[in-house]
Amino acid sequence: MPRILVVNGPNLNLLGTRETDIYGPLTLEDLNERLNNLAADLELELTFFQSNSEGELIDFIQKEAPNVSGMIINPAALTHYSYAIRDAIAAVKLEVIEVHISNLHQREEFRQKSVVAPVCVGQICGFGPYGYAMALSYFSDALREE
Amino acid sequence: MPRILVVNGPNLNLLGTRETDIYGPLTLEDLNERLNNLAADLELELTFFQSNSEGELIDFIQKEAPNVSGMIINPAALTHYSYAIRDAIAAVKLEVIEVHISNLHQREEFRQKSVVAPVCVGQICGFGPYGYAMALSYFSDALREE
Amino acid sequence: MPRILVVNGPNLNLLGTRETDIYGPLTLEDLNERLNNLAADLELELTFFQSNSEGELIDFIQKEAPNVSGMIINPAALTHYSYAIRDAIAAVKLEVIEVHISNLHQREEFRQKSVVAPVCVGQICGFGPYGYAMALSYFSDALREE
Amino acid sequence: MPRILVVNGPNLNLLGTRETDIYGPLTLEDLNERLNNLAADLELELTFFQSNSEGELIDFIQKEAPNVSGMIINPAALTHYSYAIRDAIAAVKLEVIEVHISNLHQREEFRQKSVVAPVCVGQICGFGPYGYAMALSYFSDALREE
Amino acid sequence: MPRILVVNGPNLNLLGTRETDIYGPLTLEDLNERLNNLAADLELELTFFQSNSEGELIDFIQKEAPNVSGMIINPAALTHYSYAIRDAIAAVKLEVIEVHISNLHQREEFRQKSVVAPVCVGQICGFGPYGYAMALSYFSDALREE
Amino acid sequence: MPRILVVNGPNLNLLGTRETDIYGPLTLEDLNERLNNLAADLELELTFFQSNSEGELIDFIQKEAPNVSGMIINPAALTHYSYAIRDAIAAVKLEVIEVHISNLHQREEFRQKSVVAPVCVGQICGFGPYGYAMALSYFSDALREE
Amino acid sequence: MPRILVVNGPNLNLLGTRETDIYGPLTLEDLNERLNNLAADLELELTFFQSNSEGELIDFIQKEAPNVSGMIINPAALTHYSYAIRDAIAAVKLEVIEVHISNLHQREEFRQKSVVAPVCVGQICGFGPYGYAMALSYFSDALREE
Amino acid sequence: MPRILVVNGPNLNLLGTRETDIYGPLTLEDLNERLNNLAADLELELTFFQSNSEGELIDFIQKEAPNVSGMIINPAALTHYSYAIRDAIAAVKLEVIEVHISNLHQREEFRQKSVVAPVCVGQICGFGPYGYAMALSYFSDALREE
Amino acid sequence: MPRILVVNGPNLNLLGTRETDIYGPLTLEDLNERLNNLAADLELELTFFQSNSEGELIDFIQKEAPNVSGMIINPAALTHYSYAIRDAIAAVKLEVIEVHISNLHQREEFRQKSVVAPVCVGQICGFGPYGYAMALSYFSDALREE
Amino acid sequence: MPRILVVNGPNLNLLGTRETDIYGPLTLEDLNERLNNLAADLELELTFFQSNSEGELIDFIQKEAPNVSGMIINPAALTHYSYAIRDAIAAVKLEVIEVHISNLHQREEFRQKSVVAPVCVGQICGFGPYGYAMALSYFSDALREE
Amino acid sequence: MPRILVVNGPNLNLLGTRETDIYGPLTLEDLNERLNNLAADLELELTFFQSNSEGELIDFIQKEAPNVSGMIINPAALTHYSYAIRDAIAAVKLEVIEVHISNLHQREEFRQKSVVAPVCVGQICGFGPYGYAMALSYFSDALREE
Amino acid sequence: MPRILVVNGPNLNLLGTRETDIYGPLTLEDLNERLNNLAADLELELTFFQSNSEGELIDFIQKEAPNVSGMIINPAALTHYSYAIRDAIAAVKLEVIEVHISNLHQREEFRQKSVVAPVCVGQICGFGPYGYAMALSYFSDALREE
Repeated sequence: MPRILVVNGPNLNLLGTRETDIYGPLTLEDLNERLNNLAADLELELTFFQSNSEGELIDFIQKEAPNVSGMIINPAALTHYSYAIRDAIAAVKLEVIEVHISNLHQREEFRQKSVVAPVCVGQICGFGPYGYAMALSYFSDALREE
Repeated sequence: MPRILVVNGPNLNLLGTRETDIYGPLTLEDLNERLNNLAADLELELTFFQSNSEGELIDFIQKEAPNVSGMIINPAALTHYSYAIRDAIAAVKLEVIEVHISNLHQREEFRQKSVVAPVCVGQICGFGPYGYAMALSYFSDALREE
Repeated sequence: MPRILVVNGPNLNLLGTRETDIYGPLTLEDLNERLNNLAADLELELTFFQSNSEGELIDFIQKEAPNVSGMIINPAALTHYSYAIRDAIAAVKLEVIEVHISNLHQREEFRQKSVVAPVCVGQICGFGPYGYAMALSYFSDALREE
Repeated sequence: MPRILVVNGPNLNLLGTRETDIYGPLTLEDLNERLNNLAADLELELTFFQSNSEGELIDFIQKEAPNVSGMIINPAALTHYSYAIRDAIAAVKLEVIEVHISNLHQREEFRQKSVVAPVCVGQICGFGPYGYAMALSYFSDALREE
Repeated sequence: MPRILVVNGPNLNLLGTRETDIYGPLTLEDLNERLNNLAADLELELTFFQSNSEGELIDFIQKEAPNVSGMIINPAALTHYSYAIRDAIAAVKLEVIEVHISNLHQREEFRQKSVVAPVCVGQICGFGPYGYAMALSYFSDALREE
Repeated sequence: MPRILVVNGPNLNLLGTRETDIYGPLTLEDLNERLNNLAADLELELTFFQSNSEGELIDFIQKEAPNVSGMIINPAALTHYSYAIRDAIAAVKLEVIEVHISNLHQREEFRQKSVVAPVCVGQICGFGPYGYAMALSYFSDALREE
Repeated sequence: MPRILVVNGPNLNLLGTRETDIYGPLTLEDLNERLNNLAADLELELTFFQSNSEGELIDFIQKEAPNVSGMIINPAALTHYSYAIRDAIAAVKLEVIEVHISNLHQREEFRQKSVVAPVCVGQICGFGPYGYAMALSYFSDALREE
Repeated sequence: MPRILVVNGPNLNLLGTRETDIYGPLTLEDLNERLNNLAADLELELTFFQSNSEGELIDFIQKEAPNVSGMIINPAALTHYSYAIRDAIAAVKLEVIEVHISNLHQREEFRQKSVVAPVCVGQICGFGPYGYAMALSYFSDALREE
Repeated sequence: MPRILVVNGPNLNLLGTRETDIYGPLTLEDLNERLNNLAADLELELTFFQSNSEGELIDFIQKEAPNVSGMIINPAALTHYSYAIRDAIAAVKLEVIEVHISNLHQREEFRQKSVVAPVCVGQICGFGPYGYAMALSYFSDALREE
Repeated sequence: MPRILVVNGPNLNLLGTRETDIYGPLTLEDLNERLNNLAADLELELTFFQSNSEGELIDFIQKEAPNVSGMIINPAALTHYSYAIRDAIAAVKLEVIEVHISNLHQREEFRQKSVVAPVCVGQICGFGPYGYAMALSYFSDALREE
Repeated sequence: MPRILVVNGPNLNLLGTRETDIYGPLTLEDLNERLNNLAADLELELTFFQSNSEGELIDFIQKEAPNVSGMIINPAALTHYSYAIRDAIAAVKLEVIEVHISNLHQREEFRQKSVVAPVCVGQICGFGPYGYAMALSYFSDALREE
Repeated sequence: MPRILVVNGPNLNLLGTRETDIYGPLTLEDLNERLNNLAADLELELTFFQSNSEGELIDFIQKEAPNVSGMIINPAALTHYSYAIRDAIAAVKLEVIEVHISNLHQREEFRQKSVVAPVCVGQICGFGPYGYAMALSYFSDALREE
């Protein structure tokens, strides 16, 4: 079964407890469970990772990328300045999808620039936790086409 | 059956014939057919519209918005300067998803600013024609939750 | 009786139904009727035009300008990027007043730049529908002075 | 009878003698007289004030604002940098209209930014001394509606 | 005989009547006639089109491009913001020359940026109506070399 | 007993009456009284000054600076453009602390730049009237250390 | 006894040994001891943390925030780009004070922008180690008022 | 005997006592005396004025300008933001020379922009008090040529 | 016979040997010969000059301008910063055409700004060596009209 | 024997496996071995460190700097935003050389700004792995001169 | 007798023949003669140099600087971009005065930035040829004071 | 023996005599001698050239490039604006190394942008005269590898 990484950046471990008016009531555990259910339907295996540390995120990407079929990443605040994550993604040559829970275009100016998106397949933002599901179904669809 | 608008802006009628290295080989008719098939599965009805004219796009949005459950729009080049389309969407108070076939973040600087996205639910870019399907499944999911 | 054009740009046909917290409850028909009443008092004749299309607005300006004494225009969103409307006004050499219903200086950054105002007599913003009346009385006053 | 302040900033005491190609031949005294005549018709009382000093303008606004129904202000050059006048207006919570004799949009770049307008009801520019009359009639109209 | 499109954007129908100090006394009809004479000498056929509407210009380009050998376009004010016309030209893969009657470099700042020129063969500005003739002779020369 | 100046700029005389959601309910008199109580405890003498006029503020600083041990200044709106106050502080070579009642970093863009702070010991903002007390205790502490 | 976090970012462990012309001769241990003494007087308990790692700082903030009454943070260089720390503070909804030892306004351009301050109560800079004491006394004062 | 105004802006009354490494040891009284001696040689009469208040400077310029042959002004810090002084000079249509004691081009970025110089005959900076003498001799020379 | 200068700037002596994918295979000698042939047909005389030195280009322009009917100049890299060549052209008051071999709008950002074009009749770019011929025929046409 | 640190930032552990068209085929181990050979010749001892974590890099620099004669650092992507590494280098007062494998000036805009270089002795970029050898020989040369 | 260099940059050899509305009717020879007369009175010797070449200007400055007491330079257009002349002046450590005939502050934006002035004693602009005389008298005065 | 060019731009002939705190005490002759010694060891031949003239530098590069194996260039101040030297290097297709004696990143803002570096192999700055030796050893190494 093809495996997909689901990687979440700083503060996403607080999902469901933090600023729920922006990010919604779902916890990260809930979200992962939902994604696991969907993955089972799509015959995909998921590996989850969350860290508040840029370095750990890069370590994880470097280690896991060679053995998987794709990655879904929500780099959270690092989206806007982590050229190191950008370089990690470019280095491992994996198909990566950038997902954001909120619509970045409705928020502070600084959130409207992603330094990571240029090395991804594409970007999804504004659909809440459902954005991860969209990304998953894209991988399912793309893998089937191959 | 809930109805969703699928609106495409300037030059998207040339899809499949134009710059296929960027936009892929699918024609707009092919795409619409695929979306119709998916919509049937999701029990949604679709209304398609394409125009090269900002004014006609606004006329269409104004006329159809009160009678539908959502809109998928790819404003194409107008994404980057049509404050008039932005105002039309804000005025009709409809749930709208902005879709782009290519990953705007990998292209010219000017394509990285959307003046329309701030009044949409969210934005999807880089997944080729599959982006429209993602948007459709979001509406299906969201309508089911209501 | 001198004739004055009253031209409204994109989405102003939705006046009274759209974002009424910003634009107020008056419909465009109500507004035009009020202006007609005022014009009657001022012994002016009015010709109304609204379009969501930049091209149609320019066509109208070109056709009507030679036969009238002035124009009141609310270019709406086109205010901020339509150099084509600017050129049309400069070309026809008519006295033109730019009117905005809301106070642009209290809204998004992009609304604070008018590309049309430099070729107008002046600009009025923030007074709701009353701004059109102000413009009308200016023309009345200016025509009387000639 | 409701009272309205008419406040003029630096160098407007030279009106009619200064750069008459831009500001016209009317002196400030002439202008005030005309406004008094109009105010009499509209059943409004006017209090005039002109100063070249930002501090005196603020002192005047603070002292008079609690006892009047509105203010017309032409902050002249201070329009473009006096955040102190802006704060004074915001503090006194009065309905204020910003008036400019010339069309700022046709002049130097620096004149196209008003730091005062965001705390006013609206802005009028380009109509010569008639702009003050427009503002007065707005207050008359608004007061009648209350 | 090879056919060349001659496309003119907003307000160029007013040529010869509008701001003649900038654009000269020749009308668009005069210009087209002169170009027809020159084309006859060069054994080229011309198709003329003028519109004030961005959408109509794109429709025309899409429809005619597959059947012609080149296009001369003066996008007028649209030069500076119509990414949609830019995309239309890029899509049809035609050799296109951008012509401007006046020397844009001597005018307002905003006229010094062309969003269309990057997808054209080249740009000619400042030579009055003669610029169109230059473009025509280029096509004649280029076609002869093939 | 060492003497400290407490200088407040434009509109701070309205404290407690103006925008109390931002600036709190305390009047300037209340604040000064509180500071006097604290100063008594710290064995410092205070001299208070408030003016809406940049010139008067400079006059005061020039006159009093040679005879005091420090100054607390809240230049209010002048913070953002009064290079003249900056020069006055640099000229008198006094230890000066800039205090702001609200957190400037949460407000309009223009409030985030201080032209005065570079010639001060430091800046305190966001703590309401308590910021003045912090500054006072700093002077007390610093004077004791000498 | 209410507990307050005292968090220091990268390189502040070198305090007293590093660039003492800018940061002074006090070591971090000295500083913490002084703060503990002050806290004892104010009947507050302190928890100290220093790290050179953004990720560890976020982990600490997330873990401790729910059990304390406030946080004093000197994010050091991270002040200027760590949107992740900003988001952590916003997420935990704690009263936070940003402190800097040197006057940022007198140093390099890049040090004059804080991305963290907008989610804090306020900012204190330029008072050397005394800035931490100021913050502590603010919390003491604020807790007493509740 | 022709009369020339010598006007000095904020903080120049501290000349000779303030930042003498930048502005030199000469007091304003010394400077004026030297200028009077030179003026006597050149058969010119001088009127001196210094104020820390923008408003008073404008009042003085307005009152004296009609009766003199020229003005030397050092607007000090107001040079960089006082559009009101700029307008005053433009209004009185007097020949004005802007003088600065220090070389503004060697100092802070903000001192390199003069908003007053565009309405002056010219600008002199960097020559210490001698700059005033240069300006005086220019007037002497220019008056002799008339 | 009217004489026209043909002036080429830095590195154009390498034409045909340098970056032929951008500039084509024609050498400068070939180009000049072709232009001479065309000039003979048009009854014009040409004087050619190429230099890598800004100073020599200016010397040449100053010396020859008074005795010729026009100049074609390709300032090459100097186009983008040589205000001295701009001033030379403005000084000699000659009709000058700026020509570029490549389409500057398709190249590096810095090549899209010409500091020379504002003092020329017009600019031609993107047509390879044919651009010089276009310029020549313009002069022929313009001289005939006089 | 003098000791030199050789520190590599994020993703440089992938050297030789990652984007070899930009970074070349040499692995980090190969590179380190080569440098060890060169160091032996130069009678220098090397200590190698690589981390994907900004915090670990700072920890290492702080710990090792007091005991070594110099440091070679390739901060990789952190070059462009890690003010914390900049501060670490400034704090430890060590001679540091910044090395980059690729020529940053030929790549994305963001790679052309180094926030670290201002606190280094100098910067070397574009020479592939040989850049490290250059840095090493500089230290050898400089140590010999002492 | 002390010797002073009088150096003029590109196109100033055309003085009196070129754009006389801006630069006046005096030729460079006339100007130099006048300066010689003045120098004789002031007991100074002058050496004149004009060149259109940046390189020749630098050669001259390097050669002559060690043997003179000062330099007056009008770098003309080179003022705005010749960092090489700036470096030459900084290198020779001579007292240099920058003179401009016209008031740069009234002309194009690009003329308002001098890259040379920061390494000069001061700058004089707007006084026509008289500016050179002012500079000369400054040197006379300064030399006398030594 | 392979030959390498060593080219130095404006004012570098003053090396060792000019601003020795920045550029060190070595003269250009000393430096060249040292490089000759090193070249002898590396079996390379060197040709030296220095000029203050951009044009002469380009002439030299064009003439010598076809017959050498590499070039070391220190364009000095021209680094920051000479697009003509950039084009010369791009045209001759030679391996070129840009060297700077001082660390540009520690100096004025304008020195931090090189317009030449993008067409070079790489850039070395901050190592004093030793930077030239580094560049030489790179060529030696690279030539040996071929």
